[in-house]
Amino acid sequence: MTLPTHVKLLDVGPRDGLQNEKANVATEHKAQLVAMLQDAGLTEIEVTSFVSPKWVPQMGDNAAVMAAIERKPGVRYSVLVPNMKGLEPALASRPDEILVFTAASEAFTQKNINCSIAESLERFAPVIEGAHAAGVKVRAALSCALGCPYEGDISADQVEAVVQPLRALGVDAIDIADTIGVGTPRKVQAAMARALKHFPLAEVSGHFHDTYGQALTNIYASLELGVHSFHASVAGLGGCPYAKGATGNVASEDVVFMLNGLGIETGVDLDRLVDAGAFISGVLGREPVSRVARAVLAKRG
Amino acid sequence: MTLPTHVKLLDVGPRDGLQNEKANVATEHKAQLVAMLQDAGLTEIEVTSFVSPKWVPQMGDNAAVMAAIERKPGVRYSVLVPNMKGLEPALASRPDEILVFTAASEAFTQKNINCSIAESLERFAPVIEGAHAAGVKVRAALSCALGCPYEGDISADQVEAVVQPLRALGVDAIDIADTIGVGTPRKVQAAMARALKHFPLAEVSGHFHDTYGQALTNIYASLELGVHSFHASVAGLGGCPYAKGATGNVASEDVVFMLNGLGIETGVDLDRLVDAGAFISGVLGREPVSRVARAVLAKRG
Repeated sequence: MTLPTHVKLLDVGPRDGLQNEKANVATEHKAQLVAMLQDAGLTEIEVTSFVSPKWVPQMGDNAAVMAAIERKPGVRYSVLVPNMKGLEPALASRPDEILVFTAASEAFTQKNINCSIAESLERFAPVIEGAHAAGVKVRAALSCALGCPYEGDISADQVEAVVQPLRALGVDAIDIADTIGVGTPRKVQAAMARALKHFPLAEVSGHFHDTYGQALTNIYASLELGVHSFHASVAGLGGCPYAKGATGNVASEDVVFMLNGLGIETGVDLDRLVDAGAFISGVLGREPVSRVARAVLAKRG
Repeated sequence: MTLPTHVKLLDVGPRDGLQNEKANVATEHKAQLVAMLQDAGLTEIEVTSFVSPKWVPQMGDNAAVMAAIERKPGVRYSVLVPNMKGLEPALASRPDEILVFTAASEAFTQKNINCSIAESLERFAPVIEGAHAAGVKVRAALSCALGCPYEGDISADQVEAVVQPLRALGVDAIDIADTIGVGTPRKVQAAMARALKHFPLAEVSGHFHDTYGQALTNIYASLELGVHSFHASVAGLGGCPYAKGATGNVASEDVVFMLNGLGIETGVDLDRLVDAGAFISGVLGREPVSRVARAVLAKRG
């Protein structure tokens, strides 16, 4: 089986990671993290979220962060936009891409964004239109695509039932997100296959959580289908909101180590990535959650 | 690609795990760990080592542990035997299998057991003969099969160069061991393919360390070759002797979670396995290293 020769890695640490950390990180430290990530070779970075600071105070400095980053040619910066209210300030911050999110689980969508899946799609329509009118690409995250903290198992049929209308709405790219980390290779391949029925190969990403240690295997299983776009969070920033003390986003360092071993190009320098993770972990006052980072730092002594 | 329907899991926690923990665990706690593992459904357990207590004081109670365990029909108990001196007391303890070990790396063998690979093989000859005369199976661990802390990269040729004489010496089964956890899927498949040239499929095991988070993916990649025997250590017991604070043996809980997800039978009850890991982690005064254990324990509250 031939694997892809290149992988596009999107680091979600500054947004998805820091949003789920208790500590409030200073704007300048967020900008420095972005700088270190792009210096390490990342070309896709999820920077911040234009959600209400009432709900997510950690992202209250969204516009300031976007203003503070030093944009590097060839790097694409994305921001999360939950609704029309967030669209205007988001577009004003000049992102290359916006991220909207829904879920494959009805129960999760109700609890997380307080509406049905169908209603979440209706809300997307003007957001997508507005972004496209401004020449900004729209990516959709499909949370709970492998399992739900409330519903349990999620089937490939449920995945496709949301993927299809997302594409019909004009969404450019889709993230198959294993929000609680319960996916295993065959189930991941089944979900990915459904996404690939509706989106081009280059526009389907895997967003895996390592809560049960399965993320790298799920990336490998996705590579076997030709998928070559993945999300990861430097230093494993974020944790798991559904199980205190458990792991959340897969660590970027661990993903890069595997891809290096497989001879797959990412353009990322592992040592500098470890530096970026060590920096932000220092700001948070803890160790990186990445196994690779720990091993590399232990070897550095 | 069809994966095996059953996997034989060998828990190395009581020996390989506890040998690399600083704390000296009481004999009764070791016996209780073995009891909890077999109650969880493990049918292969590496119990102790008949190495000199001067070198490995943690295993100084080897005979006492073997006398203390309550043997369950259908469960196979193995012990490590480094040399002829260890063989007599080992056989007196009535194991079902003994484990001998060498490495695919000349530098590692010199540093670890103070002889060349060729000399290590010579030392095995009478040990194998003695074990077979007593009707006891012999398994060989091939350490550093994917990489060496001193030599760096290890090739598939180097693996085969030791696998072949081991088989010629009459060794019954072989463990391809990634002692420092640097293996990635394609490299693992290449090493496994060499082992499969000389040993029957049922007698080739994967022994992966999770130091760089790669172990589960390497198990999955081995499953793709039909390999269906793996080692793991409950609660990730053991750590990594080559990088302080880094992860060592892959956690049994994480392996079982993946295999359950793949619909592959192990006969192991994950909840009871988590109990066993929580028990021994409590004895050691720390958290289980297993991501699955942490997530399951967090959910239990």
